[in-house]
Amino acid sequence: MTTTDSAPEVMLPKGVKDFLPLKAAKIDFLRQTLSALFARWGFRPIIPASLEFLDVLERGLGAGLREKTFRFDDRQSGRLVAFSPDITPQIARIVATRMREMPLPLRLCYSGQVLRHTEQQAGKDREIFQAGVELIGLASPEADAEMIAMAVESLQALGAAEFTIDVGQVEFFRGVMADLTLSPEQAREVQAAIARKDSSTLQHLLEHAPLSARAGEEVLALPRLFGGREVLDRAAKVVSNDRSRRALDNLARILEILAVYGVEEHVTLDLGELRGLDYHTGVTFQGYLTGFGRAVCSGGRYDNLTARYGYPAPATGFTFNLLNLLFALDRELDGPARPTTDVLIFQSGADKEQAQRIAHALRARGYSAARDIIPRDLEASLAYAAQMNYSNVLVLGEAGTDPELIRLADGSRQRLTPARLLAEDFSL
Amino acid sequence: MTTTDSAPEVMLPKGVKDFLPLKAAKIDFLRQTLSALFARWGFRPIIPASLEFLDVLERGLGAGLREKTFRFDDRQSGRLVAFSPDITPQIARIVATRMREMPLPLRLCYSGQVLRHTEQQAGKDREIFQAGVELIGLASPEADAEMIAMAVESLQALGAAEFTIDVGQVEFFRGVMADLTLSPEQAREVQAAIARKDSSTLQHLLEHAPLSARAGEEVLALPRLFGGREVLDRAAKVVSNDRSRRALDNLARILEILAVYGVEEHVTLDLGELRGLDYHTGVTFQGYLTGFGRAVCSGGRYDNLTARYGYPAPATGFTFNLLNLLFALDRELDGPARPTTDVLIFQSGADKEQAQRIAHALRARGYSAARDIIPRDLEASLAYAAQMNYSNVLVLGEAGTDPELIRLADGSRQRLTPARLLAEDFSL
Repeated sequence: MTTTDSAPEVMLPKGVKDFLPLKAAKIDFLRQTLSALFARWGFRPIIPASLEFLDVLERGLGAGLREKTFRFDDRQSGRLVAFSPDITPQIARIVATRMREMPLPLRLCYSGQVLRHTEQQAGKDREIFQAGVELIGLASPEADAEMIAMAVESLQALGAAEFTIDVGQVEFFRGVMADLTLSPEQAREVQAAIARKDSSTLQHLLEHAPLSARAGEEVLALPRLFGGREVLDRAAKVVSNDRSRRALDNLARILEILAVYGVEEHVTLDLGELRGLDYHTGVTFQGYLTGFGRAVCSGGRYDNLTARYGYPAPATGFTFNLLNLLFALDRELDGPARPTTDVLIFQSGADKEQAQRIAHALRARGYSAARDIIPRDLEASLAYAAQMNYSNVLVLGEAGTDPELIRLADGSRQRLTPARLLAEDFSL
Repeated sequence: MTTTDSAPEVMLPKGVKDFLPLKAAKIDFLRQTLSALFARWGFRPIIPASLEFLDVLERGLGAGLREKTFRFDDRQSGRLVAFSPDITPQIARIVATRMREMPLPLRLCYSGQVLRHTEQQAGKDREIFQAGVELIGLASPEADAEMIAMAVESLQALGAAEFTIDVGQVEFFRGVMADLTLSPEQAREVQAAIARKDSSTLQHLLEHAPLSARAGEEVLALPRLFGGREVLDRAAKVVSNDRSRRALDNLARILEILAVYGVEEHVTLDLGELRGLDYHTGVTFQGYLTGFGRAVCSGGRYDNLTARYGYPAPATGFTFNLLNLLFALDRELDGPARPTTDVLIFQSGADKEQAQRIAHALRARGYSAARDIIPRDLEASLAYAAQMNYSNVLVLGEAGTDPELIRLADGSRQRLTPARLLAEDFSL
């Protein structure tokens, strides 16, 4: 094989990656920290199937995600099957078909991978690592506030220092648009300009649309409606329709509850934020770490999704994008998620029994220990241990000599009796 | 939607499943227990990509798994891509292409899902949950013994009481077969009969093959060569070729080391066991729980696999089948993996702040706590808590009254001051 053949870039399709121990340990740390936090909030795990019938899955997907779905013929059933591009519709299906007899609310969490086709462009992930929660059965702002408070607490638990949760409300935008007489094409262009906060394009579009001056003003205000709590007052002065006003009342109530949670300092409002998925029906939010442009979490209310599987129930939830978290928190995770092993046991004699007994005792006390079972001299073993992030090398000599513990950080050496190493209260 | 439409059996393709909280919590427990054990033995996590180029993947797959591979056209590259049916060849690729500069041995572990096409038959999983380890860089029996000892210790850590590790050696069989003058077709039939321990079919096949009496005896002995250590002596008397004798010496050495580990009581030998994957080159093993017919773990030596990606290195490893473990240990896992939540907070008054403060304090002490944010009376809340496996309900009344903790197991009630609940040393 030539060097070119074995280079990693030609070994894997674009948009997917292998994660070596340094990164994989960080992903595991993110998963475990989030799963533990979700459990402390009373959320129970659920694992959806990795394959779905395409027609079943598509009931829960909007046009955007349908296009991105990996699909193929199922040899076994002859039907089209798919890998889900989003876990929330799968959970909606499971709740609607297999958990409808259970009392509400349901607090469910998951951790898994989804696949999405992406445009041919560099650096875009096709495999997305998600960990998230769904709170099903409650239409109240209490439930949405719980999601945002959990997102804040999760980011704090992961060691994020500066971050904001950008909160929007799709009903506010829908209320504004419902009054307009725009073609679907025009509506899409307007929505795209608002999402880009591109006021000049927006103005141009509205000049050529058959709108009242009042309606045009409402739409033109949208890209500017972001900031702190005062956005609600500014927005209330601009809009006149009931639907948008109810959305503002809903946001005001959520902010009140978030103030009680003590997390309001992390919350900003953005009424021109339209990145919610097609199934969102109320508040939506995205979490951003300062200095990192891609959202690390996103979520919102979706009150009509379980109904697509025959069981209407209000719901809200959010999910973390673990690879975005990994990228944004890479340095912060060096400490807690570094893959190290406590002890490498080096043994020059032929007697393996002592080494195995000591390794077993160390593991029983929760330490990680591996034996260096390659025959080599101590110097080579120490070099291996240093390069592979071991913390200590334990040298077992011939019968009658005491073991020696070498701490790799400072090279310090300590003689220990075998009895000491095997003692219940031994600690490194 | 009709009732029939929403029945779970038509919602999902055959061979894949959704796991609800009771089962999902058990799968999580299996994953976490095994990952922690692998880490204590010094193994580091690795996460292979979920998509591979089919031609790259197939270098590491035998004919059996190639057939079972999910494959499809990649919209983006125009090449055939695939989901791996086995994680070991992916790790061989990663080691060979991205970790070849690292010092040996490499101790790597993983936890993930693979997909395999199966024949149209009921109950066969297409999605297989695996958790396993690879030890790369050592040809010695020490390394194989480490794998078997870890398998034993893993099963003990999971609460398995009675189990055996069936150990075989593919080189023993290959030594016997190499001397025979059988057509590929005949060889396949002979191998299948040995695997089924079907001595009468085997006898019939050999009578019609151009073999010496001596060679026929060797083959006929294979299905009977299982049991304890004495199998090695019986086998040595039967075979005369060097390749098979070396295989027996290798097994004898591994058994000696396993005796030092103190795990020999769990080990049985089976020289007619041929279920190793195509890439195996030496010892192979499967773990069985008493009373459960499918293997819960399997592994063995594979010295030629990384070479298929341009980097020759001896290697050994094994993997658990988590769904087989889940099935076999279902009852044993009821205790350690039951999804419960410590406290449901019921609050009749309008003041949410106290409930949020107390929930936050409980979580900070490691307890799980959820607020019952659906408006209902205490009786309904208690019924919900009981049905959803909460351990306690904490009743917060109007300002001025002390909280009451109701233990659901026995209905006992205890008054606590808010200060007590918020104290650092509070425990349930």
